[in-house]
Amino acid sequence: MALKFTVLKTASDSAARLGLLETAHGVVETPVFMPVGTQATVKTMTPQELEAVGAGMILSNTYHLYLRPGSDLVKEAGGLHRFMGWQRSILTDSGGFQVFSLGKLRKISEEGVEFRSHLDGSKHFISPEKSIEIQMELGSDIAMAFDECPPCPAEYSYIKESADLTYRWAKRCKARHDHPYQALFGIVQGGVFPELRRQSASQLGELDFPGYGIGGLSVGEPKPVMYEMLEALDPAMPRDKPRYLMGVGSPDCLIEAVLRGVDMFDSVLPTRNARHGTVMTRHGNLTVRDRPFARDFAPIETGCPCYTCTHFSRAYIRHLFKAREVLGLRLATIHNLAFLIRLMEEIREAIRQDRLGQFREQFFAGYAG
Amino acid sequence: MALKFTVLKTASDSAARLGLLETAHGVVETPVFMPVGTQATVKTMTPQELEAVGAGMILSNTYHLYLRPGSDLVKEAGGLHRFMGWQRSILTDSGGFQVFSLGKLRKISEEGVEFRSHLDGSKHFISPEKSIEIQMELGSDIAMAFDECPPCPAEYSYIKESADLTYRWAKRCKARHDHPYQALFGIVQGGVFPELRRQSASQLGELDFPGYGIGGLSVGEPKPVMYEMLEALDPAMPRDKPRYLMGVGSPDCLIEAVLRGVDMFDSVLPTRNARHGTVMTRHGNLTVRDRPFARDFAPIETGCPCYTCTHFSRAYIRHLFKAREVLGLRLATIHNLAFLIRLMEEIREAIRQDRLGQFREQFFAGYAG
Repeated sequence: MALKFTVLKTASDSAARLGLLETAHGVVETPVFMPVGTQATVKTMTPQELEAVGAGMILSNTYHLYLRPGSDLVKEAGGLHRFMGWQRSILTDSGGFQVFSLGKLRKISEEGVEFRSHLDGSKHFISPEKSIEIQMELGSDIAMAFDECPPCPAEYSYIKESADLTYRWAKRCKARHDHPYQALFGIVQGGVFPELRRQSASQLGELDFPGYGIGGLSVGEPKPVMYEMLEALDPAMPRDKPRYLMGVGSPDCLIEAVLRGVDMFDSVLPTRNARHGTVMTRHGNLTVRDRPFARDFAPIETGCPCYTCTHFSRAYIRHLFKAREVLGLRLATIHNLAFLIRLMEEIREAIRQDRLGQFREQFFAGYAG
Repeated sequence: MALKFTVLKTASDSAARLGLLETAHGVVETPVFMPVGTQATVKTMTPQELEAVGAGMILSNTYHLYLRPGSDLVKEAGGLHRFMGWQRSILTDSGGFQVFSLGKLRKISEEGVEFRSHLDGSKHFISPEKSIEIQMELGSDIAMAFDECPPCPAEYSYIKESADLTYRWAKRCKARHDHPYQALFGIVQGGVFPELRRQSASQLGELDFPGYGIGGLSVGEPKPVMYEMLEALDPAMPRDKPRYLMGVGSPDCLIEAVLRGVDMFDSVLPTRNARHGTVMTRHGNLTVRDRPFARDFAPIETGCPCYTCTHFSRAYIRHLFKAREVLGLRLATIHNLAFLIRLMEEIREAIRQDRLGQFREQFFAGYAG
């Protein structure tokens, strides 16, 4: 097992933890935020720019890479790291979430999921075993078990059945997984029902995965419900394994989830926001393409050390968006990723000094997000 | 006058010249190729990436910047260099070519050109004086006189009238131009008629501009006709002033035009090609998005020292294009600009060693372009 996780420190007044996560491609400090590179590229960014904003681990999507360019091609290229020129760590999701998002285009059975490609309508079947095989071909550092991600809201009975299926699939994933350096994480489901969450955590805990995803949150439920689930899960999850809250990336959720014991995050939020001309700041989001910024020659965020803020003005970036120039997307993406990754650094520093509660107060005092 | 041009060497068997062109923002060796940054950005590139591929001077378009974001805004930002974060030299065109390309949307008179914006249909009027005022607000290092760029093909009588108008406008531009460091170039017209070309060169020569554009070529006439015009112009143009062949950027035309005494070039070709998935190589263009490259793990051009070729494969770049990822446009643009700028370096080195004729033979032996 190439994955090593060390809890360096736990907060005295919350479940927040400072840790080190080591994979075959490097060490990252946790809590960590992973930018999303769905199609073997974090949208608009080069690997060098990702390193420059401080990214140590990225997420890539199994469903997309399986369909295009194909995991066999990625394997032939020498694996995903080599294919995309990224030397640091990569986590791949299982493809489950994307497949279930296809709605009518997919059919779930005990065996797996039949679906039609969103690209060309071709028919495919992904079983837990197949998801693992694809992820092994991709050669990511962390693979995720194939889970069912139920819709929200959903009935208790549906969620219970779904969590049970996810558990059975997790066992099959583990049985199939066999890779020299890749680690396989289980995924805790259970919807918005604390007891199902705890049961899922307990069942998956018995399978002794080297880490755990927390799935099915941030899918439409109110934020306080997500926080409640994390609180219910904290005592039920193994303390010495990394906990990865899937698909969460807004600054307030990051802080609240870290306080509830989460170590890893991913989200398309910073990159998607950037593409819509929305930049993230300590005072909340700012739509830099709006008219008020036309003659605003200040940087997006004064004092921000990122490439964008040290070289370009809001007025210039607004111009690029109005003129539909690619550089606008790039500069906004660089800033948003740098902003979130720096926020995580500050969170880690606050845990180190055991003042994360205070950090939260100060952050929310200035944040209108 | 901030512009200084020095001819360092002239070929023994052709009109090719090696020179140094110094502006308020640096020195470039000539012959030089200028990437085009129409809307205050060379599409997809940061200024730092432009420096890395070796660009020393870029072109930006007066018509586009006048309409958006407005030259007054650029002036308020501290000028175009500061607005876009580019420290090296900038040449602006006059807006003439773009305005005339509007077709039915414009009306030419002795006074100037009335036209409707391609963005919102609003009515505008640009006179020679207005073009110069806009360019002074932009603060480029080299401004171009406002000329009429006639269609091709066109009758002798039309071209003659047009060249005469361009001459009268050139005088008005010169009278209006008053800038601490910006140099103003005249533009030679005359269509495909050698005597009109020579007459235009002679008339403009009398106005003693610090440099001359050669306009109205590369607009549809066959390449041999363009070469013939350059040959006709060579003896008629002042030898101590830089000669700028506007809108030309294919490798074969660059070599042939340098052999006929041209010092400066600009073209959207490398950046536009890149956006369509076409990369430029010593063996000709290559449509990297085509299927044969799906499993081609070699770089675009083996031995090319550019960032793209030293980090990424054809297969990866093809994937990015198929997946419509911005990084594909970026990597192709970086390579194409690096390729053309390196070609110019090789051309200069060949002039230095007085073997440009030999270089041409070798180049065309391998080029299928």
